[in-house]
Order: sequence, then C-alpha cells, then structure tokens
Amino acid sequence: MAYSIITISREFGTGARLIGRQLAELLGYGYYDRALIEMSAEKSGLSEEFIERTEEKASNSFLYNLATAAYISSDMGMQYSVPVNDRAFMVQSDVIREIAKKENSVIVGRCADYILKDHPKLLRVFIYADKADRINRIINEYGNSPKTAESTLNKIDKGRANYHKFYTGTAWKSLENYDLCINTSTTGIKGAVMAIKAAAEEKFGKD
Amino acid sequence: MAYSIITISREFGTGARLIGRQLAELLGYGYYDRALIEMSAEKSGLSEEFIERTEEKASNSFLYNLATAAYISSDMGMQYSVPVNDRAFMVQSDVIREIAKKENSVIVGRCADYILKDHPKLLRVFIYADKADRINRIINEYGNSPKTAESTLNKIDKGRANYHKFYTGTAWKSLENYDLCINTSTTGIKGAVMAIKAAAEEKFGKD
Repeated sequence: MAYSIITISREFGTGARLIGRQLAELLGYGYYDRALIEMSAEKSGLSEEFIERTEEKASNSFLYNLATAAYISSDMGMQYSVPVNDRAFMVQSDVIREIAKKENSVIVGRCADYILKDHPKLLRVFIYADKADRINRIINEYGNSPKTAESTLNKIDKGRANYHKFYTGTAWKSLENYDLCINTSTTGIKGAVMAIKAAAEEKFGKD
Repeated sequence: MAYSIITISREFGTGARLIGRQLAELLGYGYYDRALIEMSAEKSGLSEEFIERTEEKASNSFLYNLATAAYISSDMGMQYSVPVNDRAFMVQSDVIREIAKKENSVIVGRCADYILKDHPKLLRVFIYADKADRINRIINEYGNSPKTAESTLNKIDKGRANYHKFYTGTAWKSLENYDLCINTSTTGIKGAVMAIKAAAEEKFGKD
C-alpha cells in the first residue's frame, strides 16, 4: 500500500517549515526539508550549499543554466554530461521518490508536488501570506533590516518561481497545481496546520 | 462583537453549495446562497431571475453593460439612474452586509469576499476542481449531455470571472483574494468541509 505524502510548496517568509514540522508531529509522519538536501548531497557528491542554493539561483532560467555551467567547469572539471543544476534536481527527485516509498511524510519545497504528482496518496499544499507579514517574519526570524528583508523576499520568490517553471513547465502560484492553498496571514500557523490535518485525515483516513 | 463570516467563491460544478450547507450545519451558522437572491429581489423590486443571472450574463464587461441597459429600457422604462446590473450588485452588497451584522454565516458567491473584505472576522474560501470532475458533476446534477455540460461550465466560469473583475478590479482565481483555496477533486466534499471547519475554529475560536 502506498504511503501518505503531504507536499508543502511555499512563498518565503510564511512559516511553512513550522507548519510542516507541527503537522508531521501531529500526524506521526516523517518530516523532510533540510534533510532532503543532506540526503541529496550524500547521494550525489555535490555540496549541500550548492544544492541548497539551486532554487534561489534560478532567478533567470537562461542565466541560471549558463552560470551553473560555468560553476561546473571552474570548480568541478566538467565531470557531468548534464548541467550540474539539472543533476541536483534529478538527485533530489530520486531522494523524494525514495522517501515516498519509505514512510508517510511531509516534504517541504523542491517541486516535490510535481515530482510525486502521480503518487496515489498525495496532498499538495501551497502556503502563502501577505507581503507585509512575510517581511515581518523574515525580520524577526533572520534579524534582517526591513529593506534587506524585502529584497531577500523578492529574490527568493523569483528564484522559486523560476525553478518551478523551469523544471515543471507550470506556474508556481497557480491554484491548479495544488489541492489546498492557505494564507497564513489570516489562518495563522495553527489554523493552517489544523486545516491540512483535517483534509489529510479525510483523504488518507485516520489510520 | 462582530459575527464570524465564511465566504465561499467557487468555480461552477465543484460542489461548493453542498460544502457551504454542510459547513453551516456543522458550525451552527446561517447559510446563504439562493436566499441572497430572494432577499435582494424583495429589497429592490428586481426579479429573482434577473438578479440570479447577473453573474452569468457578465460574459463581456462592455456588452454586459450595454445589454443590461437595453433590458431596462424595454422592460422597466429607464426607472433607475444607474445601470440595473450595478443596481442589482449594490442591493446584493447591502443584503450581504446586513447578513454579516445579523448572525455567524456562510455566504456563497456574489463577491461576498470582496464586499466584506474589511469585516473583522472573515474567512474567504475559494473552491475549485479539475475540469473533468466538474463536467461529471454537472452531468449528474443537472442531467446535461457531456457537450452541454462543458459549454455551460465554460460560459458560467467566464461570467463569474468577468463579474468579479468588473466589480472588484481583481482576478477571480488569484490566490491573493482568498484565505483558503481547496481543490475538491482531491479533498472531496467532506475533506473540504473539515478543512474549512478546522481553519474557522482556529481563527474564530470554538465558541
């Protein structure tokens, strides 16, 4: 029988990781965000830092490929026949598919919604929030100035949108890609957790 | 103290009214979809049928105004100084604001999300679903042929999108307009009801 998987895609600064962790704890599921990167690094030999930054670096699809190609030739001696960003994506995809075969899980980011789109027990969540709230969250969480927080937010959102578009061919913020989209400015973290939990229990059963 | 209001915007053929009714019953809230039209008709003297069809008729913003103006002059003798479709919208807006002052409520359709956007206790839900499921639901519910079901769906969706755009200036299917967006193809009716209930109980309290 297939395991139950909840993927969480998210705008930056929405508290999505907190939601994912609380949800996984409540449901007794495995939780993967940072661990995905560690597992992918181990599997591929690429550095964690490089893998972590592939999303953020995708600020322009064309330049993204070009810059990453340069990155390989200078640092890694052209050892891959595919661009190293694509290699990172493929390794992460393998890791995500392995997780889905191993246990009920909450997986945050990395296009897991798309990679697992044919998985038989899947709930795809998108977390968003008002910009002002996201900026405040970034200031509180990372100690940024308001100006830095806003430019970081814009840059990371743009990277995630391009990363999603580049690898899935679909728009990141399009309703059609998700089963449940939640605005944490109005629901709060707890409201989002409880809404996802309720939908998951109906969809997957309470076993 | 303000009453708790849940607005439900929806694509046609998603089971949104069923969700609204079940939700209102579970939470002990008032439920308004068809009743909105009856109340607006009574208040305005416009016919229920005319009010009911203002959404669907908004298939083109410009033609919409033109056609409705013609409708007044032939049927009602130019008795209003504003176009009758705007009059219908205003009357419905009044009715929606009155409901929000009267009791905890679930309100389906009619841009209630926008009309009540400054209401202090508001949860704005958008219900959508895969096209194939919506067509099946329309066939089962209204006994249409598959072809008629699809063209009805396209026409009504287009009307709702234009109606929303015309009166609110924002895109109907844009995440930013809602707090919770649910794909009933994957959550089912019950899953949607339980997710909204969970979010509402967190947001409004369980009083």
